[in-house]
This record gives sequence, structure tokens and C-alpha cells, in this order.
Amino acid sequence: MIKTDILIIGAGPTGLFAVFEAGLLKLKCHLIDALPQAGGQCSEIYPKKPIYDIPGFPEVLAGDLVDNLMEQIKAFQPGFTLGERAETIDKQEDGSFIVTTNKGTKHHAPIVAIAGGLGSFEPRKPLLENLSKFEDNGVAYMIKDPEVYRNKKVVIAGGGDSALDWSIFLADVAAEVTLVHRRNEFRGALDSVEKVQQLKNAGKINLITPAEIVGLKGDDTLTAVEIKKTGEEENLVLEVDNFIALFGLSPKLGPIGDWGLEIEKNAIKVDNALDYQTNIPGIYAIGDVNTYPGKLKLILCGFHEATLMCQSAYQKIYPDKKYVMKYTTVGGVSGFDGTKKEAPKAVVKAIE
Amino acid sequence: MIKTDILIIGAGPTGLFAVFEAGLLKLKCHLIDALPQAGGQCSEIYPKKPIYDIPGFPEVLAGDLVDNLMEQIKAFQPGFTLGERAETIDKQEDGSFIVTTNKGTKHHAPIVAIAGGLGSFEPRKPLLENLSKFEDNGVAYMIKDPEVYRNKKVVIAGGGDSALDWSIFLADVAAEVTLVHRRNEFRGALDSVEKVQQLKNAGKINLITPAEIVGLKGDDTLTAVEIKKTGEEENLVLEVDNFIALFGLSPKLGPIGDWGLEIEKNAIKVDNALDYQTNIPGIYAIGDVNTYPGKLKLILCGFHEATLMCQSAYQKIYPDKKYVMKYTTVGGVSGFDGTKKEAPKAVVKAIE
Ligand SMILES: Cc1cc2nc3c(=O)[nH]c(=O)nc-3n(C[C@H](O)[C@H](O)[C@H](O)COP(=O)(O)OP(=O)(O)OC[C@H]3O[C@@H](n4cnc5c(N)ncnc54)[C@H](O)[C@@H]3O)c2cc1C
Ligand SMILES: Cc1cc2nc3c(=O)[nH]c(=O)nc-3n(C[C@H](O)[C@H](O)[C@H](O)COP(=O)(O)OP(=O)(O)OC[C@H]3O[C@@H](n4cnc5c(N)ncnc54)[C@H](O)[C@@H]3O)c2cc1C
Repeated sequence: MIKTDILIIGAGPTGLFAVFEAGLLKLKCHLIDALPQAGGQCSEIYPKKPIYDIPGFPEVLAGDLVDNLMEQIKAFQPGFTLGERAETIDKQEDGSFIVTTNKGTKHHAPIVAIAGGLGSFEPRKPLLENLSKFEDNGVAYMIKDPEVYRNKKVVIAGGGDSALDWSIFLADVAAEVTLVHRRNEFRGALDSVEKVQQLKNAGKINLITPAEIVGLKGDDTLTAVEIKKTGEEENLVLEVDNFIALFGLSPKLGPIGDWGLEIEKNAIKVDNALDYQTNIPGIYAIGDVNTYPGKLKLILCGFHEATLMCQSAYQKIYPDKKYVMKYTTVGGVSGFDGTKKEAPKAVVKAIE
Repeated sequence: MIKTDILIIGAGPTGLFAVFEAGLLKLKCHLIDALPQAGGQCSEIYPKKPIYDIPGFPEVLAGDLVDNLMEQIKAFQPGFTLGERAETIDKQEDGSFIVTTNKGTKHHAPIVAIAGGLGSFEPRKPLLENLSKFEDNGVAYMIKDPEVYRNKKVVIAGGGDSALDWSIFLADVAAEVTLVHRRNEFRGALDSVEKVQQLKNAGKINLITPAEIVGLKGDDTLTAVEIKKTGEEENLVLEVDNFIALFGLSPKLGPIGDWGLEIEKNAIKVDNALDYQTNIPGIYAIGDVNTYPGKLKLILCGFHEATLMCQSAYQKIYPDKKYVMKYTTVGGVSGFDGTKKEAPKAVVKAIE
């Protein structure tokens, strides 16, 4: 059982920044995310695109924003349960919560902050017989650890940025990379498309287009895929260790929709006049996942909501303590790892 | 008469960021500030100190944050009335407002956003006879344009960062700089104290301590000051063109307190459940200057409040238009100066 002060569901920008604000209040956080990496939409959908409306950044790449947030919260040593979906919540007698993921990992905390964005990112899966049998036995929809593919024969399906970028990355890692797409045209950053063309020309990526994976073979684990090339009679059988289907991830509110929270427009209703708490005391909803009059699904709004939420959580955890806010510039930042950042102090010194 | 869409009172971080959010909605802004420069508390009180809780910045100097905000809003060409205090507000028949400063400058706008922080920064003045007579005629409490002092004989009084830093700066500009302080000890950044010591040793700053300015001389304009050195019988008379009293600026809610707005704990009450509007429709209050349940006087909160305020202002100005929010990453940023920033588009391209 993982224990923490604030259990955050969703490691997007909102969930990440909540770790910082909680840390200032000496509260520890643990984050759960269905994705294999932190950053939510920023990492999954547009890591290499610039955002222009983060205050103080005339321009910042979404991926860099996430890196900066990870750096900012590092000293508060957040825990992560990645690649798992928060599935059920159970309220304990003492008012605390146990949240269990689809893989059975259990988390216990007095406060739950749902920072689930547009929902848990779930892969679009190809319609193939036996698909579920091979899941985690050769078939994957996202890449958690590229080292798994070292010296393996890998086939990637997809025509977007993920398929392009992972083909490029794995060309140096895997024994063999085959990229299959149902069109000749790929859709992605110009750089990526050109790089794949180069690697194909150099014989480092096998390209099969227009084509589709139509069958999976193997006993317990995947050993081969069957590929149908458009216009050709005979299907091709390709021996592979891994099939990675990168048809995009789409967010689904999912199990959280059944937790007894008030839902409106596919989002969780919160009390924005106070602390972004939901109808269940002790459960907050912050960032894109919540709704209230005037709500804007913007990153900067999630930051504010996370900050106010943490203050309220503090009062719930320590009802008898009076928290006196100190500016970070004045009080510094004391990490849980023993680090301390602080502004250089003014000196009082005679000039003679 | 200066005309604009949103008249912002206070050019601190909140007011500055409001310009950006308004600009995305194609609304023009004009800012009034009592200080000679933009940036509010960040520029006036702690420009060289690090802030640790701006989301996405593990650390940023307050002055750099302001510079970044100025860069971010540049394309939206905000107007500035600096060094003047917003004094009176008059509601027009059509519901718009005219705001007049202490120097008589008039501004007309359908929406007023008060981003006045802890209040208008007002100088602490020395108790000297004839003081007001010499104001703007040789006596100043803040430096609007250092070029005014080129080749002038200047006496600066004060013992903090402003006095130190301006003495250093003007040592290269003025004909003569004399620094007077009632103690031998100065309080400021170590760098600054050491630099003044060096300049004093090099004969580029005259230091008179412990001492006080006790009299001002001149007919219409200042020609000399009288200085009393502690322990000495006779006062010193120093011929100068300018006396700059840098005893600190302190914020005062000031005239805004008499505008008929609901005031609580020296701040303006707003409807945080909706749009940060005050009890007077069309007047909003954002950032440190407002109060509501759970309010935190933090920069990141001002950013959020400014953003929601602009959406509401847009609806007031264009009641019949339906605004459809577009992410900056998707829609780009079109400046009023004709510039356009936008993310590189994905390509759709065959790989052969
Ligand atoms: C193309 C594009 C451009 C954008 N441009 C901008 C812009 O310019 N400016 C701006 O402010 N915003 C922009 N946005 C929106 C911005 O990305 C979101 O507002 C922001 O990501 C929301 O952050 P969040 O942390 O609330 O949620 P998300 O980033 O959505 O993160 C939520 C995370 O929670 C996880 N999750 C949800 N439910 C569960 C569960 N049950 N179990 C486990 N994990 C779960 C999800 O997997 C996800 O990783 C853009 C979005 C897109 C798609
Ligand atoms: C030493 C110190 C350290 C801090 N550290 C942090 C930190 O680490 N993190 C954080 O988030 N915050 C910190 N703060 C607080 C932060 O600076 C404020 O929250 C922020 O400046 C508020 O911005 P604002 O734009 O709302 O108001 P302000 O910055 O106060 O700006 C308001 C402006 O309005 C002007 N004004 C007011 N009334 C009038 C009028 N009638 N006419 C003309 N002009 C007027 C004032 O002159 C002023 O320039 C700190 C503050 C101090 C003093």
C-alpha cells in the first residue's frame, strides 16, 4: 500500500504543479497516470509545439514546460504510479481514501486530488482477433521503456508523430524496425517525416505502405504478424518480437465517472467559490477535469486551482494548525530531500 | 483623452498579463501606474530576488519575470501612463468610465480592471519645510528618467537598495553624486554595498554619514541643501541641482478606496465564483488588490484572475458575439503590430 498526504490522479501540468504547492505546505504527494510518462496532454499530444500563453514565457515548448515543472517539484520527491489507471476509490471509516488501479496497485491518502484532464489516455486499438491475449506479451500501445526493444524485431503501425518518432528512436535500439501504415502519406512534423525517409533510404527502417496488420501469430507470446498490402493478393508474414500499435491515445473520463461525483459536460463539478472541492468532501478536482461557471481549460488556470486546493487540503489534514503563508522569495523552498533554495539575504554593512 | 477597451489600473504582473489575455481577444489595453516603471512590487521591492513559485520556473528573478511579461505582451502594444496615480472615476451615461490621474490625464474605457496590488506606491517623504514647493523643481522621490540628472549635482538620501543602486548608476551620469544617510550602515545586496564602497574610495561618490538633510534652499528651484552631520555643531550647506529622497515607497489603497467599491481588509471584494467583478458592474479587481474566500496574494493567482476577467470583459463589450476559445498553440498569437507567432504546422507527406 502506497501512503501519501495528497494522492493526485493525473500527472499533467496541473497535477505536477500541485506537488510543488503541497510541498511548500510540507505535504507529500503521489501521482497516478495511465500514461507511461508525466505531462498529460502536453507530453502526449504536443510535446514539440510552442505554447504562448504560459505567464512569463513568451514561448515555451509543451515538453519543456513539463521538464521545467519536473525540475521545480524535484525537491519534493513525488511518487509516481505510471502506466496504470485509477479504477476504484473506497472511503475508509476515518474519512481517508484507498484508490486502486487497473493493475491492482493500492494507494492510501486522506486527500484525493483529481487532475485527470480530459480523462485517462487510452489507446485506440486495432480490431484484431487474439489482440488481448498478446497484450503485454509482444503487443503494446505505448512505449514505457524503450530498452525493452533492444535487439528485438519490432513492427510499428501508425501514420502520425508517435509512429514516426518511435520508429526513428528505435532504429538505433531494435534489431529491426518495420513501419506499417495504411497510406503512403504520413502526418507529422516535417523533421520527423524527413528523418524517417532518410532512415528508410539508409535501410535502417523497413517501410511497408499502404498496408495493414491483419493477424497476430504465436502461442503465448507474439512471434509474427500478418500484413496485408493494399492491392496485393497474398498476405505477408513478418517474424517479429513486438508489435507496437500507435494509432493515438484518446482521453476517456472512464472509471472516475462512476465514483459518485457530480458530473456535468463530461467534467467534475467543483465549488470554485472556495477550494475546488467536489461534492465528496476530501476529493478535489483541478485543471481540465473540473467545471464551474466561467471555467477555462487552460494550463494557467490549473496552476491556480492546484494552489488553492492545497491550502484547503492542508486545513483538512491539520484542522488545528493555522498556516501562515510565506512568500517563496522570503521563506525559501525547503525540499524533502534536504535541499534548501533561498534568496541571498540583504546585508547591513558600514561604508567607511 | 486616452481611449482603450480595458483600462488597467496598476502595471504589476497581474495588470501586465491581463494585456496578453485581452490581446488574444483582440481587446486593447492601457495601464496607469503611480510608479515610473512597470512591474509593481516585483520591480519596486525585489527586482533582483528569486521567486520560486512561478509555475514552470524553478527560479526566476522578479525583475526578469517582469521583463518576460513585457516581452510577452509587446505585440499587443499596451499604452502606459506612468508616474501618475488614478484619482477619480466617473461613470458615463453609456456605462463607460472616465478615470483621471493626479496629474489630470484622462482615460476613457468601457471596462476598468483594477490591478492595484497593495495600493499605489507612494514615497515616504522627509519632514522638511518648503518640501512641496520644490517637488518637481529639484526634489524627487523616485527616478523616472535618469537622463534628467546628466551633468547635474545630485544629493541622494537613504540607506537601502534604492539609494545604493541609484548612487551607483548616477555616479556615471551626474556631475557629482553625494549620498547622505543617517547611519554608517547601509542595508542592501552585498554587491551594491561593496560597489558603493569602491566608488567612494575612487572619489566618484561623496559619502556623508551619519547625517541628515535638514533644509532646502532656493527661490523657485532647488539650489542647495543643508546637511546636519551627527555630533557636529555647524550644518553643512551643499550646492546641488537635485535632491532625491529615497526613503522607500509604501503602497496605499488611496483614492480607489473612495470609488464606492466594497472594501474588506483593505482590499476590494469581488465575485470569485464568476469573473472577479466588483459591486460596480464593469469594474473588475484582479491580483493582490482583490479579496474573496480563500484568496491568496500570489502572482500565479493574479494571472488566473486576469484571464477569467478578460473573458467576462469581452462578453460585456460584445454582448452579441460568441467567443470560441482557441489554444494559442493551435491558433497562434496575432499581435496588433502585425506580427504573428504560430506553431509549425504538421505536414502530410508521402515517404517513398
Ligand atoms: C493540441 C493542444 C494544444 C493546446 N494548447 C494550449 C495552449 O496553448 N495553452 C493552454 O493553456 N492549454 C493548451 N492546451 C490545453 C492544455 O494542454 C490542458 O489545459 C492541460 O494539459 C490540462 O492539464 P491537466 O493537468 O489538467 O490535464 P491533462 O494534461 O489532460 O493530464 C491529465 C492526466 O490525467 C491522466 N488520467 C486521467 N484519468 C486517469 C485515471 N483514471 N487514472 C490514471 N490517469 C488518469 C491522463 O492520462 C492524463 O495524463 C492544448 C491542448 C491541446 C490538445
Ligand atoms: C518581498 C516580497 C516577496 C514576494 N515573493 C513572492 C513570491 O515568492 N511569490 C509570489 O507569488 N508572490 C510574491 N510576492 C507578492 C507578489 O509580488 C504580489 O503578489 C504581486 O506583485 C501582485 O501583483 P499585482 O499586479 O496584483 O500588484 P502589484 O505588484 O502590487 O502592482 C500593483 C501596481 O498598481 C499600482 N497602483 C495601485 N493603485 C494605483 C492607483 N490608484 N494609481 C496608479 N497606480 C496604482 C501600484 O503602484 C503598483 O505598481 C512577494 C512580495 C514581496 C513584497
